[in-house]
Amino acid sequence: MKVIQSSKNPVVKQWKKLLTKKGRDQSLTYIVEGFHLVEEALKQHDTVLELIVIEGVELPNKWNLDGVELIQVSEEAGKVLADTETTQGVFAVCRQKETTSIDESKTFLLLDGLQDPGNIGTIIRTAEAAGIDAVILGKGTVDLYNPKVLRSAQGSHFHLPIIKGDLSDIIRDLKEKGVPVYGTALENGEEYTSVTPEESYALIVGNEGNGMSQEILMQTDQNLYIPIYGKSESLNVAIAAGILLYYFKNGQ
Amino acid sequence: MKVIQSSKNPVVKQWKKLLTKKGRDQSLTYIVEGFHLVEEALKQHDTVLELIVIEGVELPNKWNLDGVELIQVSEEAGKVLADTETTQGVFAVCRQKETTSIDESKTFLLLDGLQDPGNIGTIIRTAEAAGIDAVILGKGTVDLYNPKVLRSAQGSHFHLPIIKGDLSDIIRDLKEKGVPVYGTALENGEEYTSVTPEESYALIVGNEGNGMSQEILMQTDQNLYIPIYGKSESLNVAIAAGILLYYFKNGQ
Repeated sequence: MKVIQSSKNPVVKQWKKLLTKKGRDQSLTYIVEGFHLVEEALKQHDTVLELIVIEGVELPNKWNLDGVELIQVSEEAGKVLADTETTQGVFAVCRQKETTSIDESKTFLLLDGLQDPGNIGTIIRTAEAAGIDAVILGKGTVDLYNPKVLRSAQGSHFHLPIIKGDLSDIIRDLKEKGVPVYGTALENGEEYTSVTPEESYALIVGNEGNGMSQEILMQTDQNLYIPIYGKSESLNVAIAAGILLYYFKNGQ
Repeated sequence: MKVIQSSKNPVVKQWKKLLTKKGRDQSLTYIVEGFHLVEEALKQHDTVLELIVIEGVELPNKWNLDGVELIQVSEEAGKVLADTETTQGVFAVCRQKETTSIDESKTFLLLDGLQDPGNIGTIIRTAEAAGIDAVILGKGTVDLYNPKVLRSAQGSHFHLPIIKGDLSDIIRDLKEKGVPVYGTALENGEEYTSVTPEESYALIVGNEGNGMSQEILMQTDQNLYIPIYGKSESLNVAIAAGILLYYFKNGQ
């Protein structure tokens, strides 16, 4: 087993680059942190390249480490990689997978310009739980492999295709295939409960502060809103996504 | 206008105590931060005691500061109060209000042992948006006046009664009044869509990791679950609350 003591070790420096989008894009790898996420990663075929563990941290016996390089690091070196203050001390360097095709997908969730990593991760987790077939991240939406996105997604990103794309192009393709496309808007929309969901649909949610872009709103078949019965100005976007996803799932 | 330069000023030390539950409980005051929350606080009757502003930060002309003591502080002193790294530099010391009675309330959300301040705040915001009449925080649930709870609640805590209470006692009272009480559970529950909601109901959501306590689960009329269609193990508790709250609201 390789052992690394110094946080200045060139290997640690390479890992540190994976905390940036640029570093991840160049190497086509990323890091997950914590027992739950690393265990999920190890269950995936041909995904984990290196398993990094801070000295003194015990790994579960059930983990299958065939083909995985195990590297022990000092606490000092490990802390460089930690996204959380109280790290569990276990990390996996994973291969970015080419996305499964979404040609067979029937239900889609599109994210337009979302910025909060926690929201994006929670939305991916919720979409997967609600049985959505594919998630599409529009330009301007935070990177899937951002550590905070991965943490909130709790491993869901391993279980459904998530692609980056130009939302305009994708909406045009979906409409050509006859998939109804629903945007979300606070104004000029219809109450979401007016829709009778069918087997196939695409839902779009937008930026935390500004909502969906006007350009995308104009390309949908219909724009929906969730009524606010109190004095709140709006719902958190992940909450709104959850309400819509389960309404559409149950309404089929 | 009072001006405070040093972060060691006794007044700053008093404010700093309000960042702890103990300090808030003793003084029956709390601090809100940022333009949106301070503006919401100023709209409430007899709520803001002191308005604290970091030097150089401009206040909106529309704010009505009658009866409010305005105090300017240095950046150094202001940073002591800031819950966020990029503070907007405006804070209000607010009076804790005695809760409006919940005797007339018909719909209730009960929180059993929730620990994540962001979840609790988001749930309060969502409950208010969904038209819930009262929120009850059980023992073991993080303090309402925790700065992170208030930030996530986005001012909703001003708009509906939120009381602390013993959930067992409250459930007993609700059942005596004929209010159906629904718990949430991953096991031994019924699918939430099997319920036809009536005009009055109480919903309970539980701790992020462990769910509701067994004791409380046994006191409900019925326990519900939200089906998971993918491989996720669970939904985030705030998402689950949002799905249930809007289902019950729409189902009436």
